[in-house]
Amino acid sequence: MKEIFPRAGGNAFESVDTVSETQRCSALKERYLATRTATETLAEPLSPEDQTIQSMADASPAKWHRAHTTWFFETFLLLPRLPGYTPFDETYHYLFNSYYEALGERHPRPARGMITRPAASDIAIWRTHVDDAMLRLLDDRPEEIGDLVELGIAHEQQHQELLLTDIKHAFSLNPLLPVYVARARKPAANDAAPKQRWHEIAEGVYPIGHDGPGFAFDNEGPRHNVFLNGAKIAMRPVSVGEYMDFIADGGYRRPEFWLADGWDAVRANGWDAPAYWQRGDADPTTFTLHGLLPLREDEPVVHVSGYEAAAYAAWAGKRLPTEAEWEVAAREHASANSREPSLSFHPGPLQHGFTQDVWEWTSSAYSPYPGFRPAKGAVGEYNGKFMVNQMVLRGRSCATPPGHERLTYRNFFAPGARWQFSGFRLAEDL
Amino acid sequence: MKEIFPRAGGNAFESVDTVSETQRCSALKERYLATRTATETLAEPLSPEDQTIQSMADASPAKWHRAHTTWFFETFLLLPRLPGYTPFDETYHYLFNSYYEALGERHPRPARGMITRPAASDIAIWRTHVDDAMLRLLDDRPEEIGDLVELGIAHEQQHQELLLTDIKHAFSLNPLLPVYVARARKPAANDAAPKQRWHEIAEGVYPIGHDGPGFAFDNEGPRHNVFLNGAKIAMRPVSVGEYMDFIADGGYRRPEFWLADGWDAVRANGWDAPAYWQRGDADPTTFTLHGLLPLREDEPVVHVSGYEAAAYAAWAGKRLPTEAEWEVAAREHASANSREPSLSFHPGPLQHGFTQDVWEWTSSAYSPYPGFRPAKGAVGEYNGKFMVNQMVLRGRSCATPPGHERLTYRNFFAPGARWQFSGFRLAEDL
Amino acid sequence: MKEIFPRAGGNAFESVDTVSETQRCSALKERYLATRTATETLAEPLSPEDQTIQSMADASPAKWHRAHTTWFFETFLLLPRLPGYTPFDETYHYLFNSYYEALGERHPRPARGMITRPAASDIAIWRTHVDDAMLRLLDDRPEEIGDLVELGIAHEQQHQELLLTDIKHAFSLNPLLPVYVARARKPAANDAAPKQRWHEIAEGVYPIGHDGPGFAFDNEGPRHNVFLNGAKIAMRPVSVGEYMDFIADGGYRRPEFWLADGWDAVRANGWDAPAYWQRGDADPTTFTLHGLLPLREDEPVVHVSGYEAAAYAAWAGKRLPTEAEWEVAAREHASANSREPSLSFHPGPLQHGFTQDVWEWTSSAYSPYPGFRPAKGAVGEYNGKFMVNQMVLRGRSCATPPGHERLTYRNFFAPGARWQFSGFRLAEDL
Amino acid sequence: MKEIFPRAGGNAFESVDTVSETQRCSALKERYLATRTATETLAEPLSPEDQTIQSMADASPAKWHRAHTTWFFETFLLLPRLPGYTPFDETYHYLFNSYYEALGERHPRPARGMITRPAASDIAIWRTHVDDAMLRLLDDRPEEIGDLVELGIAHEQQHQELLLTDIKHAFSLNPLLPVYVARARKPAANDAAPKQRWHEIAEGVYPIGHDGPGFAFDNEGPRHNVFLNGAKIAMRPVSVGEYMDFIADGGYRRPEFWLADGWDAVRANGWDAPAYWQRGDADPTTFTLHGLLPLREDEPVVHVSGYEAAAYAAWAGKRLPTEAEWEVAAREHASANSREPSLSFHPGPLQHGFTQDVWEWTSSAYSPYPGFRPAKGAVGEYNGKFMVNQMVLRGRSCATPPGHERLTYRNFFAPGARWQFSGFRLAEDL
Repeated sequence: MKEIFPRAGGNAFESVDTVSETQRCSALKERYLATRTATETLAEPLSPEDQTIQSMADASPAKWHRAHTTWFFETFLLLPRLPGYTPFDETYHYLFNSYYEALGERHPRPARGMITRPAASDIAIWRTHVDDAMLRLLDDRPEEIGDLVELGIAHEQQHQELLLTDIKHAFSLNPLLPVYVARARKPAANDAAPKQRWHEIAEGVYPIGHDGPGFAFDNEGPRHNVFLNGAKIAMRPVSVGEYMDFIADGGYRRPEFWLADGWDAVRANGWDAPAYWQRGDADPTTFTLHGLLPLREDEPVVHVSGYEAAAYAAWAGKRLPTEAEWEVAAREHASANSREPSLSFHPGPLQHGFTQDVWEWTSSAYSPYPGFRPAKGAVGEYNGKFMVNQMVLRGRSCATPPGHERLTYRNFFAPGARWQFSGFRLAEDL
Repeated sequence: MKEIFPRAGGNAFESVDTVSETQRCSALKERYLATRTATETLAEPLSPEDQTIQSMADASPAKWHRAHTTWFFETFLLLPRLPGYTPFDETYHYLFNSYYEALGERHPRPARGMITRPAASDIAIWRTHVDDAMLRLLDDRPEEIGDLVELGIAHEQQHQELLLTDIKHAFSLNPLLPVYVARARKPAANDAAPKQRWHEIAEGVYPIGHDGPGFAFDNEGPRHNVFLNGAKIAMRPVSVGEYMDFIADGGYRRPEFWLADGWDAVRANGWDAPAYWQRGDADPTTFTLHGLLPLREDEPVVHVSGYEAAAYAAWAGKRLPTEAEWEVAAREHASANSREPSLSFHPGPLQHGFTQDVWEWTSSAYSPYPGFRPAKGAVGEYNGKFMVNQMVLRGRSCATPPGHERLTYRNFFAPGARWQFSGFRLAEDL
Repeated sequence: MKEIFPRAGGNAFESVDTVSETQRCSALKERYLATRTATETLAEPLSPEDQTIQSMADASPAKWHRAHTTWFFETFLLLPRLPGYTPFDETYHYLFNSYYEALGERHPRPARGMITRPAASDIAIWRTHVDDAMLRLLDDRPEEIGDLVELGIAHEQQHQELLLTDIKHAFSLNPLLPVYVARARKPAANDAAPKQRWHEIAEGVYPIGHDGPGFAFDNEGPRHNVFLNGAKIAMRPVSVGEYMDFIADGGYRRPEFWLADGWDAVRANGWDAPAYWQRGDADPTTFTLHGLLPLREDEPVVHVSGYEAAAYAAWAGKRLPTEAEWEVAAREHASANSREPSLSFHPGPLQHGFTQDVWEWTSSAYSPYPGFRPAKGAVGEYNGKFMVNQMVLRGRSCATPPGHERLTYRNFFAPGARWQFSGFRLAEDL
Repeated sequence: MKEIFPRAGGNAFESVDTVSETQRCSALKERYLATRTATETLAEPLSPEDQTIQSMADASPAKWHRAHTTWFFETFLLLPRLPGYTPFDETYHYLFNSYYEALGERHPRPARGMITRPAASDIAIWRTHVDDAMLRLLDDRPEEIGDLVELGIAHEQQHQELLLTDIKHAFSLNPLLPVYVARARKPAANDAAPKQRWHEIAEGVYPIGHDGPGFAFDNEGPRHNVFLNGAKIAMRPVSVGEYMDFIADGGYRRPEFWLADGWDAVRANGWDAPAYWQRGDADPTTFTLHGLLPLREDEPVVHVSGYEAAAYAAWAGKRLPTEAEWEVAAREHASANSREPSLSFHPGPLQHGFTQDVWEWTSSAYSPYPGFRPAKGAVGEYNGKFMVNQMVLRGRSCATPPGHERLTYRNFFAPGARWQFSGFRLAEDL
């Protein structure tokens, strides 16, 4: 997807930590535009109808993603910083606030799919209007607003990934199983995934978390020490082939492997395979943004909940890694994480390393790091208030915009969520 | 709305009963086309986004109404009767079946809003395709298929009204309160409604129900005798002004007026006025298909549930009429029912008579008439299987296509429904 | 159950209409005491624990039935009529009001099972206290209060039946399947039910409804004329054996027989047989108040919903009778309705006639008779406010106290209810 | 409550760590009996009705607690270890299993309140039967079974506390507000709580978790190192008086203090104070196991959810401690934790220290310690499978049986739970 996403160049995990503040500022305008353009490119295959619906309370319409990211720049940058800027439309402020309580009443989340007007095309006009103003603002005073613009870009990149996972979910409910974009997949032999290898972590105190330079979300810091016991961590996520063994061994029918809440979810939802799998008499397939594709055993298993990840690990006699173990190991293998993005919105065949095509569930609940304090004001609601009832996922996915990932990145979802590109890798005590 | 709806000419209530079978056949093609065109005209003000969403389980997307009415002609006329006709798209058969169990699996009703594809424009193409084939069919063998085409036309007219009430509900959930179509309302003094008058029904045996000539739904027959006690029935529905007195007298806070299920609904839903009313400090308004309009005391109260109708009647020391009383009285005043449609999708000022702009709740549960038997096959599912847990409404509304109404017409909804153009009139024992 | 229920002597259907007012008054005290005693006898097999729980929102604890019937006499008779009477306990007034809104706030129905105190034994003390006061009141002024005492007796008899059906439902949820009372069932050959016979009703005008003398609920009047088409009505309800044929023919899997709401209920609840049936590999059994009993083909089918009754009728090519047809036919066969009660809380083998052991679903929605007006005040809430969303059942059941039944009796439940002793008979147009 | 609970003597927090294995074994029989007796003493004030009901899905009937703890000894000790022992009643095995999937089908948790039989008195008989057998088993082979008996005792002590919190919840739903036991509360001046003091934790590596001797639950180990940043931790929990300031300052109306899920809970449940508070015009009171008592400002706030604890901390500009901080600080103050139990099932006035009358919410999600592996077999389901979606609480409460507490104890509940005796203390980064 080079044509869609702006690339940072080089290894994303490394580059983010070494780029200078000066370089960051000078590139800001360019990256702003590239990010904004990428969103529109992602929305292009979607009809006005596609962009309007909300397929479940957790998801949002594509149009809403396009609007809400624009709302962010208007609300946090243009209105307070650009002299004379007036809101494009007062009602949009109400309609496209997501969860910022400090900014007043907002449209209820589960009703986002009722907003047929403004039209998808109206949002395009708003986006252009805001972009024009943002360019004026960026010309005038880039330094003072640099951090907020960085945040706005990162925020929009997050919504780019959500736009993709949300429309995938919506399309999956249409019996026609629409294709988002056609993608040629290399005609490859369906080999097994590369043999698992293990990385050893020695017992001791390690620093984790972001410590600059470069942008990071507030939840990635402060950098702090953790004490780790000795452990082994897998060098690649669990594959489709391996996960099929779990299913074949009765994984979804044997409560002994499951967390209690996970077993409840299995029974309540009738789960017997990852989301989007279709298993009839013939070869098993999976619904993807590129249509129905055959399941390949050498791909990482994806669209599993945290419960399924934990159950697989228990079945395998292993466990999930903590987020600290993941970060420490990934840092030691940073140079090996130079994998090309898969040019596809479906995971490619597995390789060794920590830059895979699936977010990876960890065993860590999403909690504040020691010393974490949210920012003052509405921006402070960005991350901190979600630090309960969620698990941390690490890495990146095939739908993550290039350059958005970081070694210290803390993604988070409720353990029952399956509509993200979520897989997992194993760990074990030494 | 003459530009939208084809008119039968003259008094609709009378004309239907007197038109000859020959005239009916010769006019069939013309009415088919006029009806099909009217649907598209009604959908014209709606964007693709507007046409896609489903605002509650009871409602359907506008696109779905356009498609389902087309499905009816393809399923019941073209496939069995037009030699060589093949389905336009096999998947449409599954997607746009409403409730005909005999025709196999169907898309679940509450998920109609997930169908972003086919697009609104695709449905237009399908409609043209089916219309072309229908014209060929009508040229060849009009007599044999006359009843089914009549049913298809009447069916499509019902969905025209539902399209309007459903989009009204959807728009009401959008904080922007979109206007469906702008309509000038005559600048009239807000007079009181005309003074109530009462029609007396003498005790005795009366025939009710349809007995031809002309089309009627199966649930309107067989014509049969009923015994009526002596009664008085109001010559016009209850007005907004009268209903405001009920509210002012604590109507929504006094359980003694309410059916038990009605009182439960009041408390569960927080009802304190008819649907769509907005009562702030200033003059009360109501959301309409023409935007927010001032409430007028001389208009019929509308968008009330059957529970509210019954509670008002108890408060007023009266009762609702039975459907038999309504029909007997309306028949005696048929010549007075020559009112012009209001050229608006909001009720106009009240007049005396039985052709008003609101459907009228009766006290009659929707049950089969003596001797009723549903038709064989899927068409038999049209009415009979809904004959439980619903109340009969009589008359017509401002959104009913002209020519669709009949003295014997039995509309039906669950007593808690408020999104139809539903009002009521009073009755009293002699 | 002669030992439990006081009998009126002779044929209940006839006797009620012919007893004189004088006889009624002189017998009032005796019947009051017999009814009150019968309630306690019915509760005797139940432990304090049994009497406390509420197994679903529709049901009530046995202790609550004992208390609420006492509340009725204290509230409507003792407090307004017996000079110097003070409430036994102020809190009981709040706790044991059922649905009389006019009497102020009341304990929410679904929370009746939370009332562990007062204890079952406390209620016994209250009952004695109220009975003592009632006897004083009856000694003083029987005429003036006769109607209300009659109502209180009839009310308590209704709750006697509910006590039985509610505890049956509660026990059915206990895996131990407790036996309420052991009853010997005559060792009878499992013959088929007696061959069906049909009664013809000639077209014409018939009076129905109660017209004295003797007590009746307000909903049974006023007596009024109805016009009936010619029809045939079965001389006995449908048997277990006949219903098994419906099941064997796929009755629960074929939507063509079902009302739409009924089919929804089948799928939502997984119904595939009447309530309480247990069908394993061996002989089918049913849970009863006498424990698990073999199903007998010559018994009436019981514990079916109105939906199942209607579906069976559609499958059989017949229909359910209206309540008017039922009453007219039953009246003509009144002399044949002299059956002995079955001495059991489970229906006995079928006979011809209209005094069977199951309530019979009709096709009539529960609506007010022409001229019906509820009584003034709280007592007026007894029946009228439930006249929506319910169907009428006629007859009596094996759990109906002897003497409580009447030809004009209108029992009513929502069409999906199955925990009553409800069966049905067929009818057909001539 | 010395008369109910057996005491370990001395400071519970210390003693548990220093008692020898020999002493433990010799005292096992005595402690078994004392624990079993305490359960029955706790149930004594409850009528059969009280013991039967289940007031919400999270709670269980008192009778069930008495039965389930007996089931534990029969299932894990008697059946596998006592030669010739046969189950007292096969059905009890099914009815009183709580969540052990490995032991087969079990009665669904939300239906525990439907089990009126066996009666409360039947459970007493079962308890005696099992106790007799346990004494025989303990005489024969105490060493081999010591750990399981210890677990059974600790398990029963947990259910003693739950029996109290569950019946408190059930009684609170009865408008009569029954008193569980009357308790005289010393007539004390309602002083403010003792002035807050702070304990400093220096940055560094600390061991936490259980490392013997003495019994502990599996989730308290293995002992392992954690790295702590420097922090201050409060020397006593937050008081009622302090919490009232939070309420007065709009705490329940200002979303900025709340976790997102917490704010949702506030709005969904209408929370505006801790559970059981009653705030009318007069002096505020709270419902307790001793009836309605005046709120005292010097008592710890109790019956708050983890969400409320976190919101208060945010309002106060502080945070909750992690469980590691709590344990490290409590260990350093172990000698100061010699407080007498309050002889009451309601918290007494606050003192400094870590042995208070309320469980204390921490900021730590309930996760496995490094190296944790559940035991093999059904006993392994005791703790591990709940390690998701819960928060850790530390300390003990006024309802915790003396001797049951430990410095390393990890209690856990979902963050929205309020029916436990749950309060919290504050912490702060250095």
